[in-house]
Amino acid sequence: MTDLAIVFWLDLLGTFVFAISGAMLAVRRGLDIFGIAVLSVAAGLAGGIVRDLLLGAAPPAAFADPRYLAAALNAALAGFLFHRVIDRLSRPVMLLDALGLGLFAVAGCGKALDFGMGPLPAILLGVLTAVGGGVVRDMLVAEVPRVLREEVYALAALVGATMVWAAEALAFDPLWSATASVAAVVAVRVLSVVLGWRAPRAPGSQ
Amino acid sequence: MTDLAIVFWLDLLGTFVFAISGAMLAVRRGLDIFGIAVLSVAAGLAGGIVRDLLLGAAPPAAFADPRYLAAALNAALAGFLFHRVIDRLSRPVMLLDALGLGLFAVAGCGKALDFGMGPLPAILLGVLTAVGGGVVRDMLVAEVPRVLREEVYALAALVGATMVWAAEALAFDPLWSATASVAAVVAVRVLSVVLGWRAPRAPGSQ
Amino acid sequence: MTDLAIVFWLDLLGTFVFAISGAMLAVRRGLDIFGIAVLSVAAGLAGGIVRDLLLGAAPPAAFADPRYLAAALNAALAGFLFHRVIDRLSRPVMLLDALGLGLFAVAGCGKALDFGMGPLPAILLGVLTAVGGGVVRDMLVAEVPRVLREEVYALAALVGATMVWAAEALAFDPLWSATASVAAVVAVRVLSVVLGWRAPRAPGSQ
Repeated sequence: MTDLAIVFWLDLLGTFVFAISGAMLAVRRGLDIFGIAVLSVAAGLAGGIVRDLLLGAAPPAAFADPRYLAAALNAALAGFLFHRVIDRLSRPVMLLDALGLGLFAVAGCGKALDFGMGPLPAILLGVLTAVGGGVVRDMLVAEVPRVLREEVYALAALVGATMVWAAEALAFDPLWSATASVAAVVAVRVLSVVLGWRAPRAPGSQ
Repeated sequence: MTDLAIVFWLDLLGTFVFAISGAMLAVRRGLDIFGIAVLSVAAGLAGGIVRDLLLGAAPPAAFADPRYLAAALNAALAGFLFHRVIDRLSRPVMLLDALGLGLFAVAGCGKALDFGMGPLPAILLGVLTAVGGGVVRDMLVAEVPRVLREEVYALAALVGATMVWAAEALAFDPLWSATASVAAVVAVRVLSVVLGWRAPRAPGSQ
Repeated sequence: MTDLAIVFWLDLLGTFVFAISGAMLAVRRGLDIFGIAVLSVAAGLAGGIVRDLLLGAAPPAAFADPRYLAAALNAALAGFLFHRVIDRLSRPVMLLDALGLGLFAVAGCGKALDFGMGPLPAILLGVLTAVGGGVVRDMLVAEVPRVLREEVYALAALVGATMVWAAEALAFDPLWSATASVAAVVAVRVLSVVLGWRAPRAPGSQ
């Protein structure tokens, strides 16, 4: 995962996918087109911005390269125009969210390793990049973020980020291992929803 | 807008104005004097701090220069003592908020251009600086931020930030163009409230 | 307070203590074990991460050194397993929170002074470090943060941070003055709760 070009494309696709999730939430909350744009940009860019700040890579890629903003705004427009179509496809939306989670987990951990971080912080940063955009999106509309409400959400990101680190340590091909890691996140996340996996609650809690 | 002194004074005035809005919200929520100070400081400083972090300008001006903190705390004190007077003047409060929005949009975009950012990121950073303090203020008391609830809020900031970039590209006088840009933000925002401009919602949404 | 080793240990202990408070909140909200881990990590690491970003110390200590993450995850596990015991000890929990507040206020101000910040910004950064983790913790579950709801919370942190600065200015022994400052924060906070100190509200507010 030393190939920065791979990180860029994973990042850009993740931005688009999460920005659509932001637009859909904004439409559901009855926000106007500016609110839709704000929530799309926040959901799409926040995770990567936080990652870049924590890496000391200022200004963040989301500001240095206008393609990120363009991706988020295109997603906002797509959500504005086609929300009814997207809404009817509830399975695809969950898939998109899982895909975004995988893309950002892999891009986040990969970029952290490229910046010379150790394994544990790099994996943590991958998870943070993956869940960050969704956290900001949900907090902006005063909802408890999905990462706290859903079973096996941060865990799926953790699996992918750990695979990125292992693949790098084993000197696997970056493109192949990135693809496999994204697929693993999507698989874990989708299986957990479809099969209704439940994580343990604290013994004796409500 | 290459004159850093102009950015400083726009910034400081914006800090004071937004900090008053934080103090007013805190009083309305029945918070004590420490809560008022916290919300004032958050509302007044958060936008500029986020901007400086994203520009890689650490430590942010709000920490490097004690006048920012002093402005925010003075605003907290003013809100604590005179909230009844300020509350009665509901139009002036909306005006103050619009003024803060304009000041921060112009200061944010101007500082980003001074740091060598491209047009699109600089304008985005201006909008983010302008709406950032209000977002943190509203999220701290678990409200959906004004930028998502109000029509033509981020848009007004966008107009001002775009004007700053255009004026710089055309080599206009910095002071004159800053003043005109702030005035444009205030005008767009105030007109949108007074005339009840509504932005389109997504077709078919509730 | 020039001894970075003291800052490290204060920091690590504060991380553990605040992470337990995050775990307890997560258990009370019925979150699963991943939610507990997320809220523990957020509560334990957020304050120090914000402080390091504002100091321009990227990557933050919480990422550069895996012991921070280990402390937060151990606290999550302790909260998961022993929440019933901890819950019964309501006084100890409040004491732990006060202790975390003191540890972070002192570590935050001390690190800011080590980085050459002036007195006012260093004290502000100490307060921000101390209250930051709790703010993120409470906002993640859509609650108004404790720093806004409780009397004499930010003030206790302010007392400790100010003592750190004064002790440094007077060239007191770092270890001794750090201990005294933490003790002062705990004392002010605990006394305010036990004696029911009330801070003034704005005259004429509800």
